[in-house]
Amino acid sequence: MSFDPAIDRRIRDSFGRMRAMTTIGASVAAVRAGEVDVVLPFSAALTQQHGFVHAGVIATIIDTACGYAALTLMPMDAAVLTTEFKLHLLSPAKGERFIALGRVVRPGRKLMVCIGDVFAEDGASRKQIALMTASMMVVGTATGLRD
Amino acid sequence: MSFDPAIDRRIRDSFGRMRAMTTIGASVAAVRAGEVDVVLPFSAALTQQHGFVHAGVIATIIDTACGYAALTLMPMDAAVLTTEFKLHLLSPAKGERFIALGRVVRPGRKLMVCIGDVFAEDGASRKQIALMTASMMVVGTATGLRD
Amino acid sequence: MSFDPAIDRRIRDSFGRMRAMTTIGASVAAVRAGEVDVVLPFSAALTQQHGFVHAGVIATIIDTACGYAALTLMPMDAAVLTTEFKLHLLSPAKGERFIALGRVVRPGRKLMVCIGDVFAEDGASRKQIALMTASMMVVGTATGLRD
Amino acid sequence: MSFDPAIDRRIRDSFGRMRAMTTIGASVAAVRAGEVDVVLPFSAALTQQHGFVHAGVIATIIDTACGYAALTLMPMDAAVLTTEFKLHLLSPAKGERFIALGRVVRPGRKLMVCIGDVFAEDGASRKQIALMTASMMVVGTATGLRD
Repeated sequence: MSFDPAIDRRIRDSFGRMRAMTTIGASVAAVRAGEVDVVLPFSAALTQQHGFVHAGVIATIIDTACGYAALTLMPMDAAVLTTEFKLHLLSPAKGERFIALGRVVRPGRKLMVCIGDVFAEDGASRKQIALMTASMMVVGTATGLRD
Repeated sequence: MSFDPAIDRRIRDSFGRMRAMTTIGASVAAVRAGEVDVVLPFSAALTQQHGFVHAGVIATIIDTACGYAALTLMPMDAAVLTTEFKLHLLSPAKGERFIALGRVVRPGRKLMVCIGDVFAEDGASRKQIALMTASMMVVGTATGLRD
Repeated sequence: MSFDPAIDRRIRDSFGRMRAMTTIGASVAAVRAGEVDVVLPFSAALTQQHGFVHAGVIATIIDTACGYAALTLMPMDAAVLTTEFKLHLLSPAKGERFIALGRVVRPGRKLMVCIGDVFAEDGASRKQIALMTASMMVVGTATGLRD
Repeated sequence: MSFDPAIDRRIRDSFGRMRAMTTIGASVAAVRAGEVDVVLPFSAALTQQHGFVHAGVIATIIDTACGYAALTLMPMDAAVLTTEFKLHLLSPAKGERFIALGRVVRPGRKLMVCIGDVFAEDGASRKQIALMTASMMVVGTATGLRD
């Protein structure tokens, strides 16, 4: 495979510095060119009033997957910033674990557009629970940001 | 003031059952008819790779503020579900604390549209860092959901 | 094939009553269960200041395709109303004609979520220029609306 | 007043080159720093199947108002491109005329965020019918685009 291991390492290192990911218990499941998968096991500590995982937590993992999907296609001296995203909640976030699949649909030089799908898994079943579209800005190191 | 104290209690009780709010340290700052304010102190446990609070955490508090803003205008036997939201990240989420102000702009019988503003506060300064628009569905108790 | 010809007829009849479609020159290219395609030939009368077709015109054809995609899955006594959509403009709308493909991704009883893709065609080439996600409400005939 | 008349002229000249505006009958009502108002009289030629103005036409006027609102704050050698927008349809678009008010809420150097409100007017009454948020990119003249 031609996918650069340095990019894989870059994404996982940056993810490791996201303390919010440790707090919620999320991890990187896979890194491919233009695609990153993030996985989150269910935790009662992340629920809303009905016992489902909070929509904002779902937004957190799929925004992260989309941002890193974009970063896989950026130069090594660039950082990524989400400028906006929209999240559709398709079904309640109930299940044993949640898989967030982010992918780039428009790899622009200054702005990348991503689509993200989130699935809930329960035993052998899998159901899509959320859908995101997001705009990711390519930010130069002159801003002082680094991934 | 004519605002029903039973509604204020309802919102705060429901918020108290959102375990995700305890996990991140958020609380209800104010409840008015069609408006709810949620406050979140900065915590390093909620940050992304650049040390700012993660966009998904900002989404969490403003989605919550918008959802409860909608609930203040719903019948007592209804529950609220977010069907979608869009979040613009206007500036990095840095500051001592974050105030999420949700308000209803279209109080429909079946669907409510909300706007949410998030501000970062640092000492005496205050700056808007995010802007949300959201669709909140009015859900009957026949679904088994209750707030 | 099992697709009901009455549904095909319903969509095309309703489309025929949309005077905006005649004004811009759009037509229905295909109707399938949960999917509708709308086609628009280029016209200089629809352009913005750079000579590309205006983003709002692109929104018009893909919102229409998504709305009718939702209507194919609704009861015969229901009507469809767009409650919100988001449109990403991926590339300038230049080409000989534009194909808007709307499809339902969540066929709810009260609310349907759709994805729409718009392609520009020029000779043998085809390029995606826009991406929509939309919420379509199922409206009863008690509102006086009919499709 | 300190608002530069050259900017007012620039907006109106560019608007005059948007043939889609002539086709639907829209015009510029006002230009201020960071704000542009566009007005559209009702026309049966712009309606959908229920006789209301098509949501895509409403998107057209408010995207235009937002884009030009952003352009008022850009350097004279820059052009503006909409990268995405979201439109909430709050009420059916019925009335004698429609006023689209676009304004910049975040005047970034590379990306501007705008809010747009659309009102329907009927005699002396005025009602908000739509709400947009949009991302406008600042594009250099090296792209060959000019406003």
